[in-house]
Amino acid sequence: MPTYHAPLKDALYLLNDVFRMERFNTLAGFAEVTPDVVEAILGEAARFCEQTLQPLNRVGDLEGCKRHEDGSVTTPRGFREAFDLYARGGWSGLSADPAYGGQGLPGTLSSIIQEYIYSANFSWGLYPVLSQGAYAALKVHASEELKQIYLPPLAAGQWTGTMNMTEPHAGTDLGLLRTRAQPQEDGSYQITGQKIFISSGEHDLAENIVHLVLARIEGAPAGVKGLSLFVVPKYIPDENGNPGLRNALQCGSLEDKMGIHGNATCTMNYDGATGWLIGEEHRGLPAMFVMMNEARLSVGVQGLGISEVAYQNAVSYAKDRLQGHAMGKPRDADSKPVALMAHPDVRRMLMNIKAFNEGARALLVWTALKADELHRSPDAAIRQAADDHLGLMTPVIKGVFTDTGFSNAVQAQQIFGGHGYIAEWGVEQFVRDARVAMIYEGTNGIQALDLVGRKLPKDGGRALKTFLSEVGLFLAEAEKDAALTIYTDPLRKAVDDLQMATLWLMENAVEQPEHAGAGATDYMHLLGVVSIGYMWAMMARVSHENIQNDTGDRSFHEAKLTTGRYFMERSLPETQTHLTRIRSGADSMMALPADAF
Amino acid sequence: MPTYHAPLKDALYLLNDVFRMERFNTLAGFAEVTPDVVEAILGEAARFCEQTLQPLNRVGDLEGCKRHEDGSVTTPRGFREAFDLYARGGWSGLSADPAYGGQGLPGTLSSIIQEYIYSANFSWGLYPVLSQGAYAALKVHASEELKQIYLPPLAAGQWTGTMNMTEPHAGTDLGLLRTRAQPQEDGSYQITGQKIFISSGEHDLAENIVHLVLARIEGAPAGVKGLSLFVVPKYIPDENGNPGLRNALQCGSLEDKMGIHGNATCTMNYDGATGWLIGEEHRGLPAMFVMMNEARLSVGVQGLGISEVAYQNAVSYAKDRLQGHAMGKPRDADSKPVALMAHPDVRRMLMNIKAFNEGARALLVWTALKADELHRSPDAAIRQAADDHLGLMTPVIKGVFTDTGFSNAVQAQQIFGGHGYIAEWGVEQFVRDARVAMIYEGTNGIQALDLVGRKLPKDGGRALKTFLSEVGLFLAEAEKDAALTIYTDPLRKAVDDLQMATLWLMENAVEQPEHAGAGATDYMHLLGVVSIGYMWAMMARVSHENIQNDTGDRSFHEAKLTTGRYFMERSLPETQTHLTRIRSGADSMMALPADAF
Repeated sequence: MPTYHAPLKDALYLLNDVFRMERFNTLAGFAEVTPDVVEAILGEAARFCEQTLQPLNRVGDLEGCKRHEDGSVTTPRGFREAFDLYARGGWSGLSADPAYGGQGLPGTLSSIIQEYIYSANFSWGLYPVLSQGAYAALKVHASEELKQIYLPPLAAGQWTGTMNMTEPHAGTDLGLLRTRAQPQEDGSYQITGQKIFISSGEHDLAENIVHLVLARIEGAPAGVKGLSLFVVPKYIPDENGNPGLRNALQCGSLEDKMGIHGNATCTMNYDGATGWLIGEEHRGLPAMFVMMNEARLSVGVQGLGISEVAYQNAVSYAKDRLQGHAMGKPRDADSKPVALMAHPDVRRMLMNIKAFNEGARALLVWTALKADELHRSPDAAIRQAADDHLGLMTPVIKGVFTDTGFSNAVQAQQIFGGHGYIAEWGVEQFVRDARVAMIYEGTNGIQALDLVGRKLPKDGGRALKTFLSEVGLFLAEAEKDAALTIYTDPLRKAVDDLQMATLWLMENAVEQPEHAGAGATDYMHLLGVVSIGYMWAMMARVSHENIQNDTGDRSFHEAKLTTGRYFMERSLPETQTHLTRIRSGADSMMALPADAF
Repeated sequence: MPTYHAPLKDALYLLNDVFRMERFNTLAGFAEVTPDVVEAILGEAARFCEQTLQPLNRVGDLEGCKRHEDGSVTTPRGFREAFDLYARGGWSGLSADPAYGGQGLPGTLSSIIQEYIYSANFSWGLYPVLSQGAYAALKVHASEELKQIYLPPLAAGQWTGTMNMTEPHAGTDLGLLRTRAQPQEDGSYQITGQKIFISSGEHDLAENIVHLVLARIEGAPAGVKGLSLFVVPKYIPDENGNPGLRNALQCGSLEDKMGIHGNATCTMNYDGATGWLIGEEHRGLPAMFVMMNEARLSVGVQGLGISEVAYQNAVSYAKDRLQGHAMGKPRDADSKPVALMAHPDVRRMLMNIKAFNEGARALLVWTALKADELHRSPDAAIRQAADDHLGLMTPVIKGVFTDTGFSNAVQAQQIFGGHGYIAEWGVEQFVRDARVAMIYEGTNGIQALDLVGRKLPKDGGRALKTFLSEVGLFLAEAEKDAALTIYTDPLRKAVDDLQMATLWLMENAVEQPEHAGAGATDYMHLLGVVSIGYMWAMMARVSHENIQNDTGDRSFHEAKLTTGRYFMERSLPETQTHLTRIRSGADSMMALPADAF
């Protein structure tokens, strides 16, 4: 049976040593969370994830969800009790706005806790997380009246949220959506249509479910510019804000999936269900994108969370399993076998995952702090820089973290040998669960196109320029210390590759946009590995200083230096191949006629 | 529901145009298979795979195998009838020795047909293929008496074979095996012990099952040098060679696995079962390696087979599914969506898989022809060169084809978007099935160590030298044609990287063997991508000549030229990253103490 221990020490290192959270104390909610308060909150979250959620992970996979004839859905044993504990523990509204039922603590803490939740129980985590996204979209775009009704119970974990976009014929291409909204005299709308792949669409965890639904008001233009966003509750709130009349919507079926069996992935049928417009008519997509961007970052965290729990279990197996002999030592028939850990190729896989996890976690915390700046800073310049950062890094975190999280789960499984393929060891579930994160909330190909086609050229490339100039300043400073050149030299080389790739796209993709599409995925991974490389160089400098000053746990900082070096030697060199591929453009990719496939 | 069409035209191109099979007509069994006979045989095999095996693939996944209280196992509906057809069709002994029940046709044809079988029904394919391995091991090492008893029914598909190595505490490390063999007065042995992960260990497809079991004769030395190989039949053959007394062995349980549900993966309990020694006492490992090497190549074919069927279904989805708009064309609200195929990032995934499949198939056919030379050539020099080739390429084909086959199945699944994650579309089964091939018959890490630690240094590096000199001669010749430089230039660069990596290992790994372990997986993939690149350069030359001479199907050859160019631009550049990683050695990989993980 898999186990899990939340990597608390790593989070505290990032918050206290690397990003020095006290620098953000002017932001609302930050000053009150001193380092010891942070440690207490994360420690409490860690215990909940380790002791309550993790033991339910395999149960969820084995039992799955059950839909009954009346359309109701039962979640796996224990899921409901865990959700009650979560809601009563105040986790749901931890960083939500105090004006609408939240506790107002830093969103960065919520992001860190999300990793623990996904590590412990990916399927379960999909129930509460969509509430956060629905909360965000309603808060930014809904009327004050809707906010008063819906936000407090979402923040309290009494109600949960969902995101309804996909229809059978329309996944990525939202312009094709057909779900209709008919205006009623009382200002509400009747929503009719079918939505598929709705995570947490129906369940028994909360007293109400708040569906955010993209639909087309009758007479609206075709395409995405005719879409509006509606809030469509399972039970229509009465005048006291309590769940009242059952709305005309139902879970029509549950999908039989490769993984995340513990989450109810629903086909949702809206049969003239009552809904209320969020924001303006025909402006549904920008409103939904508030939820989507929250969700995309959260899906990136899923990649990291699965990578971490798979890693931990592979480490434990690699320490326990005795097999083979150390390389280069003559094998004596009576000599004892050594732990898998002693074999370089096993180490290679563990180090690959470890170096990614710790670097990705840093990038996540950095980005979460930017999100707090975006939402809480009074300074417009800081908000704009934060918005640029989020625009640039959201597709990277979603795309790269989930691609790598999946391949890391596969590597962790490999360390188990044959046992990795057997269900009872639990590691194959990580692989099956992780796979979905590369697909939903916009496939990773869409993330890459969003990065290259929208985020990169936006505002004259300001976001990337800001990133590059920050890395450039860092390098100029860090290169003064000769002890850091094993980090700064590879990083500078990788940044050069990134700049050359960017230049190539600028020079070629305007005339021939297919070159951008052809290079998009490589570009996303190139930016991802450079960003994580930057995180490692930052961490190396911090840990190096800590060792010099004899502060903190020396062996912890030494491990950071070694792991960072491994990343520079083994992961960062991927930039060369990405650059070569990007420069090869679209010609051979697009040349074949369809019937040659 | 997935579909499948065997890529017959590609096989005929490889046999007739690229490798010119008629050059091998001095080998037994070759002269009689003229091109039209080959086409007829492969066409018949293709029909069997497409019409009989493929429709059972999903049934196998859904139903799985069932073990009954008496230890018997029922395979999924239809598997038995398909196996009868296979046996009656003469497929089982197609390339087996006519002296022992076989038809003596080229093994190359069997290898090509194996790809079709695995594409159509991976789980089913594991039943007959192990018979081929058992046949090979018995043929090389067993006494004439044992051969007369066991080979003809294996060749006829009346009986099937299995390979019994792994025990609960001993996977890769066979030196730890504990299964005991006690000599009996009649020359037989009593075998006692438990074996796990035995593919096709028990089933209802054939009247007898021939277990090849590694065990330790009482008093034998510890370690691998004390292992002997035994043939242990489910039913002991009577004096007429018919299944007689039930032997004291049983399937104790079936594994609950991530995939290949249609195959019975058994725990086998031997409780004083009667077995007969194959070959010499304590020389079991070399005998088992005959079976193992056959099996490893066949597992490589599994990677290719899954990659091909996943590709075909992704192509068909990418042609049918209308979603989004062509890049660079302004989007008009009324414009119709285009097929997925039109999007560069979807093309990228399809081209990645296509370029691998066709190049890998060439490497497989080349290697299969070498295997026929090894087994059938009267010329010792040719046999030696063939043996060198097989030694070098077996780990590459097993390791690289299954790693890439799996990641190709994942890419194919990605093209389906959300539907790829849903069981009814069938593509997630390909991913789950493909995963096992990276693990069994020696994990891919073990393949890499076998390559770098044994195959590379063997005989002073003769095998690699021969390979490099053949590629060098090819390049010197092909470079004369300016039209081929888009193939030859990248190949020469990649060969340089391979040579530099080899040199680095030679110079560093003798003193510090961990450097070899640290670079092994990258080296295996480096050699793999160079070998496939060489295949593509060969095919480009052949197709270029065919176009020049106006022979054959022009559009077929043009597609080869484009696909080959794509491989050179997009896959071959991976050599740079592999080289950089190999040269970084083992230091940062091995530096951390175990408790830092």
